[in-house]
Amino acid sequence: MELILPDQVTKETFDAAVEAFRLIVGEEWVLVTNEDRETYLDLYAPGDEAERRHAPSGAVVVDSVEQVQEIVRIANRYKIPLWPISRGKNFGYGGAAPVLAGSFILDMGRMNRILEVNEDLAYCILEPGVGFFDLHDYLTENNIPLWMSIPGNGWGSVMGNALERGFSRMPYGEHSNSICGMEIVLPDGEVVRTGTGAMANSKSWPLFKSGFGPAWDPLFMQSNFGIVTKVGFWLMPEPEATLTMRMSLPNPDDIGWLVDVLAPLRISGVIPHNVGIPNYMGSATTTTQRHEWYNGDDAIPDEVISRIMDRYGVGWWNFAITLYGHPQANEANRRVIEEAFKPHTEQEFSISYWKKGDPGGAPSPSVYPLRIVNWHGGRGGHIGFSPILPATGSEVYDQYRRTRNLYTDHGVDYSATFYVCGRHVINVNLMLYDKDNRDLTERTNNLFSSLVDASAVAGFGEYRTHLSYMDHVASTFDFNEGALRRLNESLKDTLDPNGILAPGKSGIWPERYRRGSQ
Amino acid sequence: MELILPDQVTKETFDAAVEAFRLIVGEEWVLVTNEDRETYLDLYAPGDEAERRHAPSGAVVVDSVEQVQEIVRIANRYKIPLWPISRGKNFGYGGAAPVLAGSFILDMGRMNRILEVNEDLAYCILEPGVGFFDLHDYLTENNIPLWMSIPGNGWGSVMGNALERGFSRMPYGEHSNSICGMEIVLPDGEVVRTGTGAMANSKSWPLFKSGFGPAWDPLFMQSNFGIVTKVGFWLMPEPEATLTMRMSLPNPDDIGWLVDVLAPLRISGVIPHNVGIPNYMGSATTTTQRHEWYNGDDAIPDEVISRIMDRYGVGWWNFAITLYGHPQANEANRRVIEEAFKPHTEQEFSISYWKKGDPGGAPSPSVYPLRIVNWHGGRGGHIGFSPILPATGSEVYDQYRRTRNLYTDHGVDYSATFYVCGRHVINVNLMLYDKDNRDLTERTNNLFSSLVDASAVAGFGEYRTHLSYMDHVASTFDFNEGALRRLNESLKDTLDPNGILAPGKSGIWPERYRRGSQ
Repeated sequence: MELILPDQVTKETFDAAVEAFRLIVGEEWVLVTNEDRETYLDLYAPGDEAERRHAPSGAVVVDSVEQVQEIVRIANRYKIPLWPISRGKNFGYGGAAPVLAGSFILDMGRMNRILEVNEDLAYCILEPGVGFFDLHDYLTENNIPLWMSIPGNGWGSVMGNALERGFSRMPYGEHSNSICGMEIVLPDGEVVRTGTGAMANSKSWPLFKSGFGPAWDPLFMQSNFGIVTKVGFWLMPEPEATLTMRMSLPNPDDIGWLVDVLAPLRISGVIPHNVGIPNYMGSATTTTQRHEWYNGDDAIPDEVISRIMDRYGVGWWNFAITLYGHPQANEANRRVIEEAFKPHTEQEFSISYWKKGDPGGAPSPSVYPLRIVNWHGGRGGHIGFSPILPATGSEVYDQYRRTRNLYTDHGVDYSATFYVCGRHVINVNLMLYDKDNRDLTERTNNLFSSLVDASAVAGFGEYRTHLSYMDHVASTFDFNEGALRRLNESLKDTLDPNGILAPGKSGIWPERYRRGSQ
Repeated sequence: MELILPDQVTKETFDAAVEAFRLIVGEEWVLVTNEDRETYLDLYAPGDEAERRHAPSGAVVVDSVEQVQEIVRIANRYKIPLWPISRGKNFGYGGAAPVLAGSFILDMGRMNRILEVNEDLAYCILEPGVGFFDLHDYLTENNIPLWMSIPGNGWGSVMGNALERGFSRMPYGEHSNSICGMEIVLPDGEVVRTGTGAMANSKSWPLFKSGFGPAWDPLFMQSNFGIVTKVGFWLMPEPEATLTMRMSLPNPDDIGWLVDVLAPLRISGVIPHNVGIPNYMGSATTTTQRHEWYNGDDAIPDEVISRIMDRYGVGWWNFAITLYGHPQANEANRRVIEEAFKPHTEQEFSISYWKKGDPGGAPSPSVYPLRIVNWHGGRGGHIGFSPILPATGSEVYDQYRRTRNLYTDHGVDYSATFYVCGRHVINVNLMLYDKDNRDLTERTNNLFSSLVDASAVAGFGEYRTHLSYMDHVASTFDFNEGALRRLNESLKDTLDPNGILAPGKSGIWPERYRRGSQ
């Protein structure tokens, strides 16, 4: 990928900044060849045009907080927009790529030290580059009985995933909730520590989230207000035993009563984790290609859906509940759950057990789910549409109907998971495409925009979105003519007057790049 | 109390502002007589001088968000510092009174509407003036099976308590954690809604905390960045049954092993709530006066402590654990807990049960604990010192020793509770005094300062403090020469350039009132 300069930056300024970066990190860690840039593109972007629109101009790979500070100071001097990444595996939402073309990647992948693991108080302190595999290896090799919560794609950064509010189906599955205490380099190069870490010799930085006075941590999530360089991160103590209950349901409209049964069990804590309810689609997309099933340009028809369900023995909707604790407590809660299901289905749960000392148990990272991008063949890509719904069957069913109809209208195969998280449901809808198929890619983009608009009309916003849709999604948050956007902008302009840090992230633009209302 | 004008405000300006306030809320809701001012003083302040140092100049009582906006705009015009209160019952930490003398109280006690209660999704939407009694009455009268978490003093505001990070020993006991979605009037009078409430027709405002992009809610807790006018607030579904286990321990050094036993049970979730461990003192202070026990000017000696323990049948440390859920799950977890205690004590737990349909169960608000202020007689007062510790027996024991020694040095009766909250412990230390006893009050103030300093040296900061000590406590957060304070100040100056909102709250001063480093 040839060089695209960031808006308002000349080639001379750019070159001077690159030279200055080299003095900080050394020649070999400033990456500005065409090949270098390729590695930071969003290869799964919804179309070549989208990939190009989010192309970086280069990358600087840092190894310490001090280097982050120096790079930030240089970026201010030359007004070079930086796009910080941990490991850059934010696939489906943009990978390593920046919103603003020509932004310079600040790559913290080498800052991958596990600074502390405390077994008794069940936390670790991590740098941005620590991946799920790294932490898993560390815990396993040192026989530390703490469990991780791991998303589908396990090669990403633990911190990066949590900062983007990734989640899993584990009890510690809301990863941003596990963050306790941050170290942040502000856009002016200052280092700040939050919570009780704001006391230099604090003994409770990774132990108590709030600190004294206002708490900042969630303001550095999905944001462009600072570069997080360390986090305290809570881990789950190994449970005594687990009991897993699985069930598959045959009909699309089962999702309604299922949510109504699961939500109160989740809210009351009988179910200790967010319950993911994927449809049949993942079984096919992770193991086969579409042409093995169907060749039409329309969405796969019901007949194909039936064949997929038959082949893999899955239902229209599928879910697993795991109970963690003393075996007798698990059994008691199992019966509570079974009672709640009885009025709705005659099916029995399929049950499996694990107890301390058995093999397995602790979850392991995997990259297996990434196979889905081969569904259409060619240069495959995927993008996720993830609105938040109230955890009621009627709202969820309506959203399912609305979404599936739009998928069908645009000829895209419906692939969805509903996560029952208690009071709310996160609905992750996947769109798979082949970037070599321009028509399909265009239909996917049109579908995505329609979904954002239709969901906003229904009262639902997204919790996270792809780079290309950040402005669109942000614009749906329209209370008091975008009061929250204005609040974000006023903080942005205060902390980052030169607009160097991740312009456009989550729809937040610094004054320098702001173009009227987004 | 005669009028004290705020710093930098003339009598003419003050009078003009008062007139303008009257036009908004009506004559009767602007309170500026000497008697009016009395009602907003911190009657429990550590000394008359402290009471005076935090005397307000008047109060304006508002009834709507629009009135809050208008008052804020007037305050900007005349540069009158405002001190917003919900119900003003923040006793032990300052009551209704402001940090800065002469601040005008913005009293939201009349905004006491319960805007919504949703039984299925277990939340309510509250205005600032809704008290624990109000919400409890509403739930009881409407037979809504949702339980509240209630602090010792039940006549305060549900929202106000949560914003100050109040807590209890219930599963929903970290009250700030129950806030989901806020409406805020910013210092310039703009209204903003956070989380998904930033979407005008959002259906998930009180259901999902984060929203899209950076999340602001915790930044409006213990802060002076905005006036919270509504919150979504989560309530606990009535459990199927409870099982309560009580134990008293005879020796001061039992606190060490007790914390080491409780912390892992709390972290793993076997114990579903923060466990409060008060010493013997509360039994005596809520029911008797000191002179009935002892007349010395030194701290009550061990002999008196023994008599108190004997009379009330309490231990040096006392605690209760409650399990909530299916009776068999509760029994299983009870056995897990009993097993964990066996190596340390031969005592048995005293056990009590409740199940759905039994009387009692849901906690009720009470003001009974406020009787403690009569301990010394006279115009009684109390103040709380509340550092955060790691949840390890050795750190907690050391802090107990350090604190008790300082109490003894200053001749103050040691009254402490340790709350085991999982990875951290909140240690609430109470100081009781009689404001008519100048010597005792002075010793209390000296003790308080010594505690802040000694704890900071040990690595512990406070999670909350009295008005008079906000600057002192804030100054102990010293990482990178007070980087967090500077970050707070830069946001403060951006949002509140006239410095009208709660100057000095949590040690955060607007530029106008800033005097070098605090």
